[in-house]
Amino acid sequence: MALEVEHKFLLANENWRQAVERSEIFRQGYLSSQPTSSIRVRICERRAWLNIKSATVGTHRLEYEYEIPVTDAEEIMAHLCKKPLIEKTRHYVRHGNDLWEIDEFEGANQGLIVAEIELDEIGRAFDKPAWLGAEVTDDLRYYNNNLALHPYSEWGEKP
Amino acid sequence: MALEVEHKFLLANENWRQAVERSEIFRQGYLSSQPTSSIRVRICERRAWLNIKSATVGTHRLEYEYEIPVTDAEEIMAHLCKKPLIEKTRHYVRHGNDLWEIDEFEGANQGLIVAEIELDEIGRAFDKPAWLGAEVTDDLRYYNNNLALHPYSEWGEKP
Repeated sequence: MALEVEHKFLLANENWRQAVERSEIFRQGYLSSQPTSSIRVRICERRAWLNIKSATVGTHRLEYEYEIPVTDAEEIMAHLCKKPLIEKTRHYVRHGNDLWEIDEFEGANQGLIVAEIELDEIGRAFDKPAWLGAEVTDDLRYYNNNLALHPYSEWGEKP
Repeated sequence: MALEVEHKFLLANENWRQAVERSEIFRQGYLSSQPTSSIRVRICERRAWLNIKSATVGTHRLEYEYEIPVTDAEEIMAHLCKKPLIEKTRHYVRHGNDLWEIDEFEGANQGLIVAEIELDEIGRAFDKPAWLGAEVTDDLRYYNNNLALHPYSEWGEKP
């Protein structure tokens, strides 16, 4: 079991791009999103994973992840996942001792950029980079499973 | 990908017990059951698996299975699966060239016994043993994911 403590933010400007260490392209879909859990399939380069997360809203979740064959992941995405799939580039940005993950969405969620930090304990203090915007940790719309159901391109008003 | 072609039957009598080759105890739970797919965690002896099935009703389904750590499976069952869990003994019964799986349920589904055959191709003929009862392949109530939601002990009228 891994206990995941995460905080999500919008971005105030583009200055984070200067600090990108590396980037990866993710394609992922949801088999299920319900009150208790979400189940995700993700392909990144030539590897794929199945991920189970408890659906507790906020900063504290149970998470399990298993590597699976890419060919299985492709089939599961094509036949069993909700559409649209989530397509995004994840940029890894170092700030002090913290590694931020900045997700730049494409496809049906193009235009959305979200920064996320995962902490190893609940309530641990962290330094906020100057490029960080409003916190959206508790805003359900920004969860990837919800972006697969209600993509950013269809939001009436955008923050 | 595995294509699963299965037929389910009730039992006409207890004569199948004389032909049991071996039996295993299964405990399993469902993370999700929905129109597109079901996701199951199963523990059998000291091993555990995560299983994804397309929810097509009838004899033709997509299926994927991955072994996972038993400790993960125990936690996922305790925290994320629908209750009641499915508890059953699976008996393997040889009849001619076919290996039948006969599931004898316990717990909330005690009293229910279902025989199942998995074929390697759609429409392949198979010999029906004399102990076989009515076919219930198309009866949704007998699917394990539905037995986790509406267990046999709560059915009003029993066949």
